[in-house]
Amino acid sequence: MARRVRMGMVGGGRGAFIGAVHRTAARLDDHVQLVCAALSADPDRAKASAADINLPDDRTYTSYKDMLQREAALPAAERMEFVAIVTPNHMHHPVALAALEHGFHVLSDKPATRTLDECRDIAKLVEQTGLLYALTHNYTGYPMIRHARDLIASGSLGAVRKVVAEYAQGWLATPLEQTDHKQAAWRTDPERAGAGGCLGDIATHAHNLAEYVTGLDVQHLAADLTTFVDGRPLDDDANILLRFNNNAKGVLHASQIAVGAENDLSLRVYAEKGALEWRQPDANTLLVHHLDAPTQILRAATAHTSDASRAATRIPPGHPEGYLEAFANIYAAFAAAVRARNDNSAPPADAPDYPGITAALRGMAFIEAALTSSKNNAAWTPVSVD
Amino acid sequence: MARRVRMGMVGGGRGAFIGAVHRTAARLDDHVQLVCAALSADPDRAKASAADINLPDDRTYTSYKDMLQREAALPAAERMEFVAIVTPNHMHHPVALAALEHGFHVLSDKPATRTLDECRDIAKLVEQTGLLYALTHNYTGYPMIRHARDLIASGSLGAVRKVVAEYAQGWLATPLEQTDHKQAAWRTDPERAGAGGCLGDIATHAHNLAEYVTGLDVQHLAADLTTFVDGRPLDDDANILLRFNNNAKGVLHASQIAVGAENDLSLRVYAEKGALEWRQPDANTLLVHHLDAPTQILRAATAHTSDASRAATRIPPGHPEGYLEAFANIYAAFAAAVRARNDNSAPPADAPDYPGITAALRGMAFIEAALTSSKNNAAWTPVSVD
Amino acid sequence: MARRVRMGMVGGGRGAFIGAVHRTAARLDDHVQLVCAALSADPDRAKASAADINLPDDRTYTSYKDMLQREAALPAAERMEFVAIVTPNHMHHPVALAALEHGFHVLSDKPATRTLDECRDIAKLVEQTGLLYALTHNYTGYPMIRHARDLIASGSLGAVRKVVAEYAQGWLATPLEQTDHKQAAWRTDPERAGAGGCLGDIATHAHNLAEYVTGLDVQHLAADLTTFVDGRPLDDDANILLRFNNNAKGVLHASQIAVGAENDLSLRVYAEKGALEWRQPDANTLLVHHLDAPTQILRAATAHTSDASRAATRIPPGHPEGYLEAFANIYAAFAAAVRARNDNSAPPADAPDYPGITAALRGMAFIEAALTSSKNNAAWTPVSVD
Amino acid sequence: MARRVRMGMVGGGRGAFIGAVHRTAARLDDHVQLVCAALSADPDRAKASAADINLPDDRTYTSYKDMLQREAALPAAERMEFVAIVTPNHMHHPVALAALEHGFHVLSDKPATRTLDECRDIAKLVEQTGLLYALTHNYTGYPMIRHARDLIASGSLGAVRKVVAEYAQGWLATPLEQTDHKQAAWRTDPERAGAGGCLGDIATHAHNLAEYVTGLDVQHLAADLTTFVDGRPLDDDANILLRFNNNAKGVLHASQIAVGAENDLSLRVYAEKGALEWRQPDANTLLVHHLDAPTQILRAATAHTSDASRAATRIPPGHPEGYLEAFANIYAAFAAAVRARNDNSAPPADAPDYPGITAALRGMAFIEAALTSSKNNAAWTPVSVD
Repeated sequence: MARRVRMGMVGGGRGAFIGAVHRTAARLDDHVQLVCAALSADPDRAKASAADINLPDDRTYTSYKDMLQREAALPAAERMEFVAIVTPNHMHHPVALAALEHGFHVLSDKPATRTLDECRDIAKLVEQTGLLYALTHNYTGYPMIRHARDLIASGSLGAVRKVVAEYAQGWLATPLEQTDHKQAAWRTDPERAGAGGCLGDIATHAHNLAEYVTGLDVQHLAADLTTFVDGRPLDDDANILLRFNNNAKGVLHASQIAVGAENDLSLRVYAEKGALEWRQPDANTLLVHHLDAPTQILRAATAHTSDASRAATRIPPGHPEGYLEAFANIYAAFAAAVRARNDNSAPPADAPDYPGITAALRGMAFIEAALTSSKNNAAWTPVSVD
Repeated sequence: MARRVRMGMVGGGRGAFIGAVHRTAARLDDHVQLVCAALSADPDRAKASAADINLPDDRTYTSYKDMLQREAALPAAERMEFVAIVTPNHMHHPVALAALEHGFHVLSDKPATRTLDECRDIAKLVEQTGLLYALTHNYTGYPMIRHARDLIASGSLGAVRKVVAEYAQGWLATPLEQTDHKQAAWRTDPERAGAGGCLGDIATHAHNLAEYVTGLDVQHLAADLTTFVDGRPLDDDANILLRFNNNAKGVLHASQIAVGAENDLSLRVYAEKGALEWRQPDANTLLVHHLDAPTQILRAATAHTSDASRAATRIPPGHPEGYLEAFANIYAAFAAAVRARNDNSAPPADAPDYPGITAALRGMAFIEAALTSSKNNAAWTPVSVD
Repeated sequence: MARRVRMGMVGGGRGAFIGAVHRTAARLDDHVQLVCAALSADPDRAKASAADINLPDDRTYTSYKDMLQREAALPAAERMEFVAIVTPNHMHHPVALAALEHGFHVLSDKPATRTLDECRDIAKLVEQTGLLYALTHNYTGYPMIRHARDLIASGSLGAVRKVVAEYAQGWLATPLEQTDHKQAAWRTDPERAGAGGCLGDIATHAHNLAEYVTGLDVQHLAADLTTFVDGRPLDDDANILLRFNNNAKGVLHASQIAVGAENDLSLRVYAEKGALEWRQPDANTLLVHHLDAPTQILRAATAHTSDASRAATRIPPGHPEGYLEAFANIYAAFAAAVRARNDNSAPPADAPDYPGITAALRGMAFIEAALTSSKNNAAWTPVSVD
Repeated sequence: MARRVRMGMVGGGRGAFIGAVHRTAARLDDHVQLVCAALSADPDRAKASAADINLPDDRTYTSYKDMLQREAALPAAERMEFVAIVTPNHMHHPVALAALEHGFHVLSDKPATRTLDECRDIAKLVEQTGLLYALTHNYTGYPMIRHARDLIASGSLGAVRKVVAEYAQGWLATPLEQTDHKQAAWRTDPERAGAGGCLGDIATHAHNLAEYVTGLDVQHLAADLTTFVDGRPLDDDANILLRFNNNAKGVLHASQIAVGAENDLSLRVYAEKGALEWRQPDANTLLVHHLDAPTQILRAATAHTSDASRAATRIPPGHPEGYLEAFANIYAAFAAAVRARNDNSAPPADAPDYPGITAALRGMAFIEAALTSSKNNAAWTPVSVD
């Protein structure tokens, strides 16, 4: 097997959620080795958190700036090769810029930044440095999402007409941020989360999935954002009409006040000759509808899925794979790309499949357009990265 | 058991679909007796159709006007008591007006008319005559829809925040109306269907269900209507944002080009302390979500459903009841009301539960508002019957 | 439409369950007219019950014997043509024999009798008189069960290897018969129910369905019957191994103590090249598995179902039909057969599809074999009608 | 975090399936470090396979005997602490015995051995040495299985009455072993698999799950085993009646010829006051039925699950965890136990939760009893480890 790629991490200390997910996903396929980290902006917490994960002292840093400087000074064969940024949103921008400036590839949690302008800064630097950038729109790592994309791309279902994308959660149906709940606190704080609440946290995933699977771009949207919980400064519900670049239409709705919903992400795509349905709670299944034949239940890892879909599975059909495995697929793809780049080796036969800077820009354009539209009473607003 | 109420029918001859549904629903509980009909505007077809259903010759009419006149002339104990109008939409208005003018109660298929103004004519006459009027928004007859309504009305889930209503069909994904398909032909013809295609045929059901279950009114909407099939003069897809009168928000989408969808009507209602999910393909189940307890699977006919819900069932739990039974519940309620009225007897202990002229007006207001909004690029448009 | 066939009914008065189901099913398609009845062995209850359903006094009888004699004396064009027997089990035998002796066709609720010997009496008389006999194994009326049968019969899935049939209920998990519950009382009373409890009430349906769909006979079985509720004289749970006549194997289990189960009847058939799955709660769906292709979701009333399956539906796909509609299909078939016989007209193009005397005999043979096996510690026991 | 436990592996080289699963599961939570391996009995394959997973040369062995000897000679702080045995079944016995003799803890894939006698050898040595032994009945690692066990153990549902356990696969519906399919080849070869085919490969999992969740023992069984595919020397289908030690009854059926089934493991437990349903394809859900309340949908990682269940999850509700995560829970528990033992530290607050030698013995007793019963025409046969 190819050598493990060396990763550093910024964020993800005690009390964080997504950092541990990144580490587990990175570890799952044994393609990545965590070699250093600045796990918290608080030095004591950073050290204690590093001890929690058996990180050696000499690669434990108490600030991301320190980490970048000192790692850059290490021999090439030893220093980290990419930085995983798993902080709250407001830190994505400064860390990503600094990492790129120090010559490190970047893998960032989503949304890419707080504003489209911040994301443009990163995009510019990515272009200038030629370094690699990945954004963990992790749901694109699901095997049946990859099959869905391949099926649409094959043209066998005809042109896409309508898309319905949903992401429903119920965990913020009450003012949880007013209790001692760290995740709720920063996600409802404009300083740390950015100007979108539900919008930036989950609607952006639904938007990304819609564009990923259909290969289309949302060109205009009309968004009705709501804050249902008193005193919350950010939206906790989003209802959005979509218009795509091939005259396809769509509906995207997301919510954090949908009592009983856990992480109910789903996507339906209706095309001229067929249609697709996928829901995260049954992630290993894709329903495929046909004009003149019965609906098919396509299952992950079976011979009836595309090569890229099967390559995203590890075990036989019926043994469920889930969120961590999908997340790991993003890491596996990015690790392969980083390794190929750093080793000047040939890239993998199949182009690596991870969301990059374009997805990052489009995500921020979506968020900004939705905010603008909602401020204008759901007026149609273009979604453009330019 | 109380005596059977005598029904006459206009429309529903050979080649029709909904007429037979009405007759079966009327017959199911043995509360209604079909005594006469004008089954077709074509005299030969009217007679042949009457023979198909063993209707006696002397009560078989070849025009609705003839039927109304001659039935009105019969002794009170013999003549029909109400007219069921099951024609294409364009005939609802003249037949309903004429029936009311001749002193007959009216049960009409939906949408009530082609325009809100036409519906106002009927409403005015209903008010003037004091006669009864029912509109077969039949999906309100489902037991679990009735339980849903009762649960929301009880207040135990708190105020409604968000509603998601869907009605997806795929049967018009191709230009079926260009073949010899009678149902497709009139439903895509503005003359007979009215100005709404998908909108009037199915979106109006989703709208009605949302208002019925929540007890709220849609006050404004923003509608993006589309015609996907070339040459079709009416919309075949509708994506609509909703705003209700308690600050609740909503999404309603309907489609006739959703390949693989049959009659996929569904409703989700998210309130402060709980939420509801109902889908027609699993009509005997209602999912009830709670803030602090596991989701419950409520099943029709069980002790865990409301009195009104149980009254709408006929058989023990687990033996599925379906569309015809729900339809029959509308008939049973209307028959009880007609009987009480005509017999000067006390109305049933529980108020009869069928959609009336208010639902008819609101349905037409919804359709017109959606058409107006869509013409104005999905601008917010009030939904008002005034 | 062909004329309505005239039905008389024995049993089904106030407090009964299945009588009303029979009447509704008979009425649904308007092929049958209830002209007379002996609704209860108690004369007062018989009269009151008749008034409940608007039966005329002169056709209301207070004993089945009286009914048979007086109806037989009526003119042929007026008297009932068949008797529906909807009493508790112990009355099936005497009423069926008497009805046949008086020249009436018979439709009986299941199980046919209390013992195989009693059933043989009926079979003998059916043969001697040439009269028609139907047994309401009503689940065979489901459209997707008929498609399943046709699919197996077509041979396209190859030979059947394994069958799993289940019928789970939970309503008798407590000693409900010790309360004032009429249905529980007679179903747990050997005098009225026969020697099988759960076995005769529901396991026999699962057995019938397995044989109906596969076209095979259970040749041997090994049954482990249990009574879980203290003081109950009949079994309330049955676990049975099956061996069929083509070397197929099977498992059949039924229960009345399966808490949470309503009427969870299901059937799975595994053949050489494919398999079928059907469950009553989702009765309009049949899953079809294939060796080398994705599983298909077959839906009732679609073009992808067999002619006989489509003929058993009344409304478009996605509008659920249920238990009463399936039951009505048995009535429709039997009515067609009775009409053809009595009118000396040609039978319907497609042979009528209702369970007859053979199914009755096999059902009783199954029950007796299971009882024998269980008494012998689940020893293999032949299932034979001879 | 506590230090990683050092693991050696026997088996799991190129072409194997379960070895990679074990390695991934071991790696997932970062509690275990693979330090050495004898991946194949073929020296060249062993070396190539070790290179595949970046194992250092000096810890790559070409025979398990060599590995055990040389590792035993290493310093305590360096040598492996336990051996994971992931070979075909026939090697479990010799490797486990040799590992125990060399002082290593053992984690073995299932079934424990080919015969109960072989398993007794291991049990004896486990007792003599006091070393730890785990058997990867991995499905017990699912969070909702653990909640199910805790719920039954709590007594709130009352005594268990009936158990239905199923494991259906379709992959061996054709003679796949006659093609070049390594997994099919050894699993249908009595020399390598043992005397049970379907029985030892999957029925044993269903048996284990039934005993794990209910806390009961199967005391007697009646098994009807079948080989449907011509020329296959082992059973590929098993239908089994069960009797448990509290008078509970059960049905267990498993199949490798169930076309369309993937790894359809499911368990239903019916108790006096409630019931449970769990299915692997929806592994994060447990249905809980109640006598007098609606059925609840319990979901993994929610506050409504037991402490032990939540401890077996890593991510928020609605983000599915699957097979690898469940498998990893077994590894995490065993690693904790090994670490506590080897460090003389206190065991974890909660007793480690992994199947041990008792489960191993009971599994073999089940297999042998089923084989004996089937040879005796499904006669009742005791299941005893003595």
